[in-house]
Amino acid sequence: MHRKPQQFGSDNYAGICPEALAAMLEANSRSAAAYGEDPWTGRATDAFRTLFETDCEVFFVFNGTAANSLALAALCQSYHGIICAANAHVETDECGAPEFFSNGAKILTAPTLNGKLTPAAIEALATSRGDIHFPKPEVVSITQATETGRVYSRDEVSAISMLCRRLGLKLHMDGARFANACATLDCAPADLSWRVGVDVLCFGGAKNGLGLGEAVIFFDHALARDFGYRCKQAGQLASKMRFLSAPWLGLLESGAWLRNARHGNLCARGLSEKIQGLPDVSLMFPVEANAVFLKAPAAVLDVLRTKGWRFYTFIGGAARFMFAWDADPAVVDALASDIVEASRAQDW
Amino acid sequence: MHRKPQQFGSDNYAGICPEALAAMLEANSRSAAAYGEDPWTGRATDAFRTLFETDCEVFFVFNGTAANSLALAALCQSYHGIICAANAHVETDECGAPEFFSNGAKILTAPTLNGKLTPAAIEALATSRGDIHFPKPEVVSITQATETGRVYSRDEVSAISMLCRRLGLKLHMDGARFANACATLDCAPADLSWRVGVDVLCFGGAKNGLGLGEAVIFFDHALARDFGYRCKQAGQLASKMRFLSAPWLGLLESGAWLRNARHGNLCARGLSEKIQGLPDVSLMFPVEANAVFLKAPAAVLDVLRTKGWRFYTFIGGAARFMFAWDADPAVVDALASDIVEASRAQDW
Amino acid sequence: MHRKPQQFGSDNYAGICPEALAAMLEANSRSAAAYGEDPWTGRATDAFRTLFETDCEVFFVFNGTAANSLALAALCQSYHGIICAANAHVETDECGAPEFFSNGAKILTAPTLNGKLTPAAIEALATSRGDIHFPKPEVVSITQATETGRVYSRDEVSAISMLCRRLGLKLHMDGARFANACATLDCAPADLSWRVGVDVLCFGGAKNGLGLGEAVIFFDHALARDFGYRCKQAGQLASKMRFLSAPWLGLLESGAWLRNARHGNLCARGLSEKIQGLPDVSLMFPVEANAVFLKAPAAVLDVLRTKGWRFYTFIGGAARFMFAWDADPAVVDALASDIVEASRAQDW
Amino acid sequence: MHRKPQQFGSDNYAGICPEALAAMLEANSRSAAAYGEDPWTGRATDAFRTLFETDCEVFFVFNGTAANSLALAALCQSYHGIICAANAHVETDECGAPEFFSNGAKILTAPTLNGKLTPAAIEALATSRGDIHFPKPEVVSITQATETGRVYSRDEVSAISMLCRRLGLKLHMDGARFANACATLDCAPADLSWRVGVDVLCFGGAKNGLGLGEAVIFFDHALARDFGYRCKQAGQLASKMRFLSAPWLGLLESGAWLRNARHGNLCARGLSEKIQGLPDVSLMFPVEANAVFLKAPAAVLDVLRTKGWRFYTFIGGAARFMFAWDADPAVVDALASDIVEASRAQDW
Repeated sequence: MHRKPQQFGSDNYAGICPEALAAMLEANSRSAAAYGEDPWTGRATDAFRTLFETDCEVFFVFNGTAANSLALAALCQSYHGIICAANAHVETDECGAPEFFSNGAKILTAPTLNGKLTPAAIEALATSRGDIHFPKPEVVSITQATETGRVYSRDEVSAISMLCRRLGLKLHMDGARFANACATLDCAPADLSWRVGVDVLCFGGAKNGLGLGEAVIFFDHALARDFGYRCKQAGQLASKMRFLSAPWLGLLESGAWLRNARHGNLCARGLSEKIQGLPDVSLMFPVEANAVFLKAPAAVLDVLRTKGWRFYTFIGGAARFMFAWDADPAVVDALASDIVEASRAQDW
Repeated sequence: MHRKPQQFGSDNYAGICPEALAAMLEANSRSAAAYGEDPWTGRATDAFRTLFETDCEVFFVFNGTAANSLALAALCQSYHGIICAANAHVETDECGAPEFFSNGAKILTAPTLNGKLTPAAIEALATSRGDIHFPKPEVVSITQATETGRVYSRDEVSAISMLCRRLGLKLHMDGARFANACATLDCAPADLSWRVGVDVLCFGGAKNGLGLGEAVIFFDHALARDFGYRCKQAGQLASKMRFLSAPWLGLLESGAWLRNARHGNLCARGLSEKIQGLPDVSLMFPVEANAVFLKAPAAVLDVLRTKGWRFYTFIGGAARFMFAWDADPAVVDALASDIVEASRAQDW
Repeated sequence: MHRKPQQFGSDNYAGICPEALAAMLEANSRSAAAYGEDPWTGRATDAFRTLFETDCEVFFVFNGTAANSLALAALCQSYHGIICAANAHVETDECGAPEFFSNGAKILTAPTLNGKLTPAAIEALATSRGDIHFPKPEVVSITQATETGRVYSRDEVSAISMLCRRLGLKLHMDGARFANACATLDCAPADLSWRVGVDVLCFGGAKNGLGLGEAVIFFDHALARDFGYRCKQAGQLASKMRFLSAPWLGLLESGAWLRNARHGNLCARGLSEKIQGLPDVSLMFPVEANAVFLKAPAAVLDVLRTKGWRFYTFIGGAARFMFAWDADPAVVDALASDIVEASRAQDW
Repeated sequence: MHRKPQQFGSDNYAGICPEALAAMLEANSRSAAAYGEDPWTGRATDAFRTLFETDCEVFFVFNGTAANSLALAALCQSYHGIICAANAHVETDECGAPEFFSNGAKILTAPTLNGKLTPAAIEALATSRGDIHFPKPEVVSITQATETGRVYSRDEVSAISMLCRRLGLKLHMDGARFANACATLDCAPADLSWRVGVDVLCFGGAKNGLGLGEAVIFFDHALARDFGYRCKQAGQLASKMRFLSAPWLGLLESGAWLRNARHGNLCARGLSEKIQGLPDVSLMFPVEANAVFLKAPAAVLDVLRTKGWRFYTFIGGAARFMFAWDADPAVVDALASDIVEASRAQDW
């Protein structure tokens, strides 16, 4: 029996990584002005500008629901449509938050190829209706990495953003696992965002090593107009802002944001390699980020549960394992062994 | 010159108190399930039930804007009116958040006596219009302690809640500084909330020693129906919930919630006593919680600013000093001395 | 070439029927109090109570978008889900109105059988998720007659409402063409609404002979609580209410509501019978109300367009013809002849 | 005893004027395409462009609540503030509609001079706060004529619009009685709207002789972007649009819009002149449009009520009499006589 078998159920089961924690503790060493007038918030904002090699506008909010919903609300009006994949988190797991924050914008789902939106599918949907009785498409939202652990290449994002420019649509990126995508592609954040036409990026912190917090990054200043008011009104302005911003500073300045993502990706890749060739266990999706989706007989999954492993099966019945900055390689190995063993037990 | 002269500008300039921090660090010792399925969240909820001596429903949200706005939205519909004091925070400093969360409920302000709402003023407003062209009054919101540092007695709250029952109104308490009020009145939390008819209390954490977080406490289970969904949709459900809940556990189990409040109150009281009898400096309001509002000649305030003290003058031109759990009594004494000195310099 | 070939494009191309117009003119004979305090509004309300054989609550609003959206908003909160058919008007043709009025409730679409929702499909959807990350199902909305001209039998509605009771869901009926359904089934309005468990019915006026206006009818008084305020706030309270209510009076008291519906149904039935047996033209759906959906070769449709007929092809490419109270049987015959002729020309 | 003594309670007690009715009946002579694709809607739009001597954008909506609320929502975001007079209809009599349509914009009331907003009062309010905790002022809304029957001169509107330009605010005019103001000032509509800097005008129809309907007129095309979608989503797109637009055509083409307004103004002026010099009855406000507000002893008002006159006393206790297009001069005279008589009876 392993010590922490539950830890791969989600990449938000992990705690706060040491670099983020150290920065938070440092920020706690004395009193400081509120609402972002403290020294850490300005430095964290600048750290994002350095990371993205551009004078972007940065807003720190509490969680991903708010980050994505506020960003989408800033990009459209209530009578607009937001195009995304049918399995996008904003469609399936936010309890109507984008609709709430935007006061009624409708999410329009397009079919995906390899779990990713394509320009063809977006264009077909965006141009399917032109009448006033249906929300006017205004924004495209893509998730990087996707809910199923796929990664959009730079060219794929570029192709989508060019279509968006042509159709007058704005491009939002849900980057709850943006760091993992950068790690996968070995790509500078700028190259995977504004340089390929992303208008607004929600950079995920919780899944990257923070205790809480996401950053909304606008690459177009006009789109960020009055966004601070929007955050305040929506209950997303922290009074003791430094406890939201300083951890980001720790994550960015130390390079932990990338190390953490690489580690998670490596664990996923490692697991996937160790279970190759099993007769009745297979990968539902190629492993491109920090997720492994296993197709396996119910009996195999039962054995794993009995051994204490915890995982979700909400997407097509596959068992999902997620790896965060704190995934213990020894435990990943143990999981791999248990899968191999359970699979072989089936065959005999 | 003092070491940290800026610290009395607001009680949200303070950091995280040791008891809250210790609990957060303890919660960070390992990975844990998300969205409140961790051990700390359940314990923190129970700690509130113990503190309030009743089976209340407890929800942990990120900040006071959200706590009050979500609670008010749960108590009314968009076409209802919310009665509060003209200087209530929900009216003056939330950038329209209650209107946003409730989708358009209107805040109706009533005149106050000693900075507090009275049954007479509430009744006059609640019964002034009965036609369909004006939002139907549905909720009364009182702030305990008030923005001006006053405290409602148990009898005062009771009188208001009895009126509310009579008129079919619900009673919400903005308790950003509820702990300070309990400390002032030396009163059990239950005696200052549900036992005197409060339906929903927003218990402030940030001003009581947390880094962030407030608790929404429903004493009537029916009013809490589906409130978890409401929090989720509004971007107020933390994925790593333990980092929001564990600090509450530290605050409540250790008794720090009350010690912190008492300390802030004591500092305010201390300052007010040390500056008594000055010819041109006086208290704008009696000191009942952790705030001191000074009426003083502009020249006196200028001298204080020159000496490095930081304070707001947004309410009637008075200088506001707020004292949190970390206020250093020696620094409070230094402030008192500077005030006395500045005042005397004026006279000569 | 026919005189008014365009008239079957939609059943809202028709004008105001004589009975409704006469009542409106009568109401215009003198000045009268506003906001429903006039004599006609009370009488029209009572006429609905008589028609439905129960003490229902009746609200007159301007159009179907508002009627359905306000009713749905009254039945749920922003974090709830509304179950309906994928081709329901509230999903496909209201530009996000239900989401707007409810401040973010999510429409959840279920598969249909013969264009109609089934208890099995509703139950599968309503019980598919139980977590807080997805809107909690709260309302079922059915359309009677459906967008494709189908009619729910009393037993079918009953089966759905019994499921709703069991699952704690409320039942809304979009009755834009409710009168047509009553005519089809030769059924008293009560028997097709509250007696089979409908909570709220939106009774369509525009498609039944009015110039504008729909009635929202609550059979459960509790659900109608403060609905007048909701209408007012949402811009749906007419100041000169009599011009909205009196036409209803004319429609109901004269029995025109039913005659109009029967006439439309008869024309649709007539057309469908006259084109039976054509080799390449067929009905996409059985004709149960006032709509005829034709599957025909593009060349046939082109011929019809050339002859001046106007119709939509938005549902599966079929040509839709709709018949209102004013459909001229001679023109319907002419249309039938043109279809037959165009079809035969194809074959040769 | 008079025949229709109740008719001066409000200017929305009047029926549909002959010119509007004739146009509606003409539009009812045959079937026509829906949603504004009919011939009348285009002509009515053009009639507005002719009237305003500019290529404005025109939208026909059902009532004033919707017209003003939709226009304001188009001019601001949820976190913005709308500056208006404390007695503005959008503040006092719309049940929170502007807040609902805008999803939470806050109405900020400024003191008035002679019942009208002044640049000084607007500027003081607009610049009183610059922090993120308070809605950012974005729109000024003025009512022409005002609720108290006052009229802004062209210079007064100009001065306000110049301030708006300087502060980056947009200018909305609630023109429920815009026609009356044009009549008072003998001023072309253009001279009282876009030529003096009004961005959006809501031109009132119900009080000008229609049965229902208001027109939202944008003088800046950019501000009207996607406004049709906004109307649709908010339940303000009539399917049989011609019955909303044709009456406008009748009103505008015949010149009735101005005749009706002049008649109402004349009646008010006439009444005010006939009661001059009474010892205990006086005008609360100068009579500049179609309203007369009388200050009189309660006993006098009681006598009037006894004689069957109906009026409101909601503004400062004064008795309000409103005169519409259908006010019968003989009945106005009778009212004047009754007032004179009741007043003299008091003195003796």
